[in-house]
Amino acid sequence: MNFMQALGAAWRERNSLLCVGLDPDPAKFPAHLQSRPDAIFEFCAGIVDATADLVCCFKPQIAYFAAHRAEDQLEALIDHIHARHPATPVILDAKRGDIGSTAEQYASEAFERFKADAITVNPYMGRDSVEPYLAHEGKGVILLCRTSNPGGSDLQFLEISGSGGKKLYEHVASLVAREWNASGQCALVVGATFPAEIARVRELAGEMPLLVPGIGAQGGDIEATVHAGCDTGAAGLMINSSRAILYAGGGEDFAAAARRVAQETRDTINRYR
Amino acid sequence: MNFMQALGAAWRERNSLLCVGLDPDPAKFPAHLQSRPDAIFEFCAGIVDATADLVCCFKPQIAYFAAHRAEDQLEALIDHIHARHPATPVILDAKRGDIGSTAEQYASEAFERFKADAITVNPYMGRDSVEPYLAHEGKGVILLCRTSNPGGSDLQFLEISGSGGKKLYEHVASLVAREWNASGQCALVVGATFPAEIARVRELAGEMPLLVPGIGAQGGDIEATVHAGCDTGAAGLMINSSRAILYAGGGEDFAAAARRVAQETRDTINRYR
Repeated sequence: MNFMQALGAAWRERNSLLCVGLDPDPAKFPAHLQSRPDAIFEFCAGIVDATADLVCCFKPQIAYFAAHRAEDQLEALIDHIHARHPATPVILDAKRGDIGSTAEQYASEAFERFKADAITVNPYMGRDSVEPYLAHEGKGVILLCRTSNPGGSDLQFLEISGSGGKKLYEHVASLVAREWNASGQCALVVGATFPAEIARVRELAGEMPLLVPGIGAQGGDIEATVHAGCDTGAAGLMINSSRAILYAGGGEDFAAAARRVAQETRDTINRYR
Repeated sequence: MNFMQALGAAWRERNSLLCVGLDPDPAKFPAHLQSRPDAIFEFCAGIVDATADLVCCFKPQIAYFAAHRAEDQLEALIDHIHARHPATPVILDAKRGDIGSTAEQYASEAFERFKADAITVNPYMGRDSVEPYLAHEGKGVILLCRTSNPGGSDLQFLEISGSGGKKLYEHVASLVAREWNASGQCALVVGATFPAEIARVRELAGEMPLLVPGIGAQGGDIEATVHAGCDTGAAGLMINSSRAILYAGGGEDFAAAARRVAQETRDTINRYR
């Protein structure tokens, strides 16, 4: 699967900019799943099967699997998505960042072992820390740009000398758009809590897709996000919601409850496109 | 184990600033190990047992295990180090960086699952992406500051407005020294290929330990590194060498060959302290 083509097709054919983030926290699972040996897989597969026709992509967050020694369940989950929902691209949210030879190992982990279609990457170590991911043709490489957490400003909001007042996150957006994205594989992460900054990144990034976490549990405003971030085709966004969808219901109907919230979220997004 | 105390004791008692980086690449293993099911563990344990009395710490790089579905061998390796060489702290080189709840999962992965004594962390997402690691009392949190790869300059060398000409990596060093290190758990990563920058970080970071990759295979100069980076007690450095030690010998004597190179490297470092 070519990530960018699959994403574009999902935007059009599903009429959805919604990305469901798979951050499985066993403490929040419904009681009937708690004792199952593959509870993480079963919970996530339930969410996936209930929402796949409503989303443009899924985004499993690897830390939630790794902390529970559940890499095998993450492999099974991504296999399941590819088998049952072959048109739905999978972003491995890993935020890796390391130099050449080690980055090659991380790229192998993401694309060969887990078979993800895209990965999130941290830009702090610069271009040669990103190239090993780009070497995997057709895979998406989604660079952290402006993050939605309070400490996101500590570095990202520093103003760069001689740049005409650009902040670090703006510099990252320009650098990726102008230099790192020659093969068209790149996208950027921009938090939904800062619509003015989404607009600024859109201005600098041209038509590059933006992955926008921070709606739902983190409180970002959907209308402002859509107005600020869509590309010229009223698409261009992967608007992520995790907890608000995953834990919409607490019982055996958790998947149906997740579907209801996913549908509402997709429809709310579409209302403002 | 309290990481900083154990590191200080290892500097004194072993008289060594050498950190051996465990970046196992099965393609480079001696032939007699190639077919073993736990080849990664056996290779690394062989290196560890041959060099533990010569080092101040070990630094397994998680990508080399994850790309080979060998997390279980990484768990076994760190257990092995703690059991056989209980005075030797273990840094998990993972360069994680994510927000609060996800960072908590990564901290749990590093400190509870893998039982590492310290972890490397990327500072791009700011203070609240670092706090969940600091919440694990006594664990070390080693922030990327100035990295030794060519692209390291792309962001780290940007000059910050209104800072009196400080570059981003200098800002990170100051921020960690003045604000993030209140509990004394922090250290910084500074590449050996830039001795003037190691000296600058030492100036900004006070007595904080510095993890210095880039000697050996990456070509950093040991004399310049030691002169630039030691603290006032002629210690303060974890000088990492990986490939030059791990692959010093290609046959059944790989561990003895690694020991010889580790001893030479330790002694060369000590000559300049």
